[in-house]
Amino acid sequence: MSRTPDRTTSRPRVLILGGGFGGVGAARELSGADVDVTLVDQHDYHTFQPLLYQVATDLLEPPTVGHSLRDLFDDEDNVTIHEARVSAIDLDRREVEFADMAPLGYDYLVLGLGAKVNFFGVDGAAEHAHPLYTLPDAIRLRDHVLERWEAADRDPALVEDGALSVVIVGGGATGIESAGALAELYRSIFTKDYPSLPQDSARIVLVEAGPSLLPMFKADLRSYTRQALEKRGVEVLTDEVVASIEPTRVSLKSGTVLRAHTVIWGAGLEAVPLTETLGVELQRGGRVVTAPDLSIPGHPEVFVVGDIAWIPGEDDHALPQLGSVALQSGGAAGKNAARRVEGKDTIPFSYHDKGTMATIGRGAAVVQMPHGRTLKGRTASLAWGAVHLALLSTGEDRAKALLDWTWAGFTHERPGRISVSADDK
Amino acid sequence: MSRTPDRTTSRPRVLILGGGFGGVGAARELSGADVDVTLVDQHDYHTFQPLLYQVATDLLEPPTVGHSLRDLFDDEDNVTIHEARVSAIDLDRREVEFADMAPLGYDYLVLGLGAKVNFFGVDGAAEHAHPLYTLPDAIRLRDHVLERWEAADRDPALVEDGALSVVIVGGGATGIESAGALAELYRSIFTKDYPSLPQDSARIVLVEAGPSLLPMFKADLRSYTRQALEKRGVEVLTDEVVASIEPTRVSLKSGTVLRAHTVIWGAGLEAVPLTETLGVELQRGGRVVTAPDLSIPGHPEVFVVGDIAWIPGEDDHALPQLGSVALQSGGAAGKNAARRVEGKDTIPFSYHDKGTMATIGRGAAVVQMPHGRTLKGRTASLAWGAVHLALLSTGEDRAKALLDWTWAGFTHERPGRISVSADDK
Repeated sequence: MSRTPDRTTSRPRVLILGGGFGGVGAARELSGADVDVTLVDQHDYHTFQPLLYQVATDLLEPPTVGHSLRDLFDDEDNVTIHEARVSAIDLDRREVEFADMAPLGYDYLVLGLGAKVNFFGVDGAAEHAHPLYTLPDAIRLRDHVLERWEAADRDPALVEDGALSVVIVGGGATGIESAGALAELYRSIFTKDYPSLPQDSARIVLVEAGPSLLPMFKADLRSYTRQALEKRGVEVLTDEVVASIEPTRVSLKSGTVLRAHTVIWGAGLEAVPLTETLGVELQRGGRVVTAPDLSIPGHPEVFVVGDIAWIPGEDDHALPQLGSVALQSGGAAGKNAARRVEGKDTIPFSYHDKGTMATIGRGAAVVQMPHGRTLKGRTASLAWGAVHLALLSTGEDRAKALLDWTWAGFTHERPGRISVSADDK
Repeated sequence: MSRTPDRTTSRPRVLILGGGFGGVGAARELSGADVDVTLVDQHDYHTFQPLLYQVATDLLEPPTVGHSLRDLFDDEDNVTIHEARVSAIDLDRREVEFADMAPLGYDYLVLGLGAKVNFFGVDGAAEHAHPLYTLPDAIRLRDHVLERWEAADRDPALVEDGALSVVIVGGGATGIESAGALAELYRSIFTKDYPSLPQDSARIVLVEAGPSLLPMFKADLRSYTRQALEKRGVEVLTDEVVASIEPTRVSLKSGTVLRAHTVIWGAGLEAVPLTETLGVELQRGGRVVTAPDLSIPGHPEVFVVGDIAWIPGEDDHALPQLGSVALQSGGAAGKNAARRVEGKDTIPFSYHDKGTMATIGRGAAVVQMPHGRTLKGRTASLAWGAVHLALLSTGEDRAKALLDWTWAGFTHERPGRISVSADDK
């Protein structure tokens, strides 16, 4: 039995699953429209994923990167939020079941459930490596790194065992940004916080299976990135594949064994398992193949957005799993749902590439612009800051991020760097 | 075997146990002195306890109230920090053992281990009530309240069972401030965040065993406090004693049973059990009785400060367990340790009462000044803000607290209100 809507209404019901960039983009587009929108996420917050690595390295505080979904839509009378876990989707009956809430029917569905980290079957990776896809991931990683430094402070013999060393798997944006931010945290902060620990025993090793970092960027940016990381003390290993991960050791297929108590996994995504139950066409990584208007072929009332979607781009490639693609596809799905409600034809989605950035450290970033243009160094770094400030959701958060960044920039200090968990005594 | 100090030195070793107001006050006093100071706390942060209720009610973010101990003393070459748990103190051998670190010997010891919450043997209190003495306490309480509102949003039948209702036990400052802040959170924020839930079913009930709230304050402040709380929708029950607490029910000795899924315990402290192993005179609540100079009689090399200490005040009463007493006694202990190192006599500790405050809500607070003067209402509220801003440890935190308060004051919005734990997926 489906849950009765809170208000008696005959307006079309749009159900949005997922409160990431895709779901929020769709809900924003539909706010004020003549529909009843319900957005359901397993958390009560929206995550600004591009900055997760800054939470993991203690540059930003969690509330700056996670924003209350209820707050985002407080002023939208036609948007209702629930925190619940999807357990089943029945496209034929147009109904969604939840593990902890009564089912919801819909007239239109926007599917934005995101992805999960793909460990590619590497032995021990799921158990011991730290992914960086969710806010709890970032907090766990931060707490783990701090805990290892405190442990080494109590027992310096742990240093030689690799307590302070970190292996980062994957030379994409997540790996690059984590390595750069970690190097900065280590060299500028931990040298002061742990003066008795030997900093040169704190290795940061970036392992990439392919021949170069940031394969999607142009050659000059790739070599700049490598140089900038190495200048900051990061050891870059390319053409090296991780064979297995233990709590304190990373074994490479080449035979090298790295001593490291922390492993960051920045190596890929796969769709949530739920996609396999939909009975629709899936592509590599379990992503749901969309029509040009983002609907599922045969289900014009269902739109798929963000990381869970395989959205056709140029040359039979899918659009990349980026925040900007998720936000734009969410908005387009919302618009197409509204057009269908109004009896209009849907519009094919067209992604506007405004550039892809990765930041390496203070005054060091790379930007791949459309049409082959590139930026690097301080100019790219400033561009990066401006773009992310503009994307942060509210004025309040923007002010806080600015404050954090300003302090970090001017005083070379970082806020926070305490590890506090509700599980502590 | 005692741990060898990091530097070879013949300077006197001062060991400070506890990084609260007492321990930090002592370490600050000794920074730069001709001694080696080691401060050990079970966490890597100092907690600004007077504002914990604001974390619990989501007005402040945890990093604003918890500040890195290493950061506080980064610039003090003679202060070393360790995060470790004390397991035993041997006053005769002048050595402290830790659960997770090699023992440390000392020439002078400052004991500032604080207190723990006293549940006075009330059935179910330790299991189901939320104390507010530590930062993890505050985060747990915040997450629990948010979780209950989300649960009621998924299943409105929970409302009648008391899912949204809170019982606060104890009419002292912790109880008053928690009740006032919670009322504000409920009436000004949750009404917008959960528009479909019946707000009048969200009861906030303050239970006090004595005849009035804030018994240490003067009569006009006590009656003002009650009126101000009731005006904000808090139900105040005096002369009512809690008999037992279950997960969703609070039973009073009068026979009344309150339906509430959340219970806040603001009703008293007792010393940590370790004091019983010291072989020294203890007073009510297990507090260690100090000489006028804060040393332990018979142990002139040991100073006791803050909540763990029974410091003689006027009329055979001990000084109250307040942050200001802890901070001042810590500073005095540090000074006396330094005087002993220099061969000087110690000085008796004299507490300077600058007033005790409790805040009830926006523009509503009470201040009991020395010599019987009182403030209440908006004036008291402004004084409260000024005092707490001045006490916050660094410019950075002060700027952030100011930002949070400014937003809350001007826009009636609160930051955060998301519940994110490292245990989440």
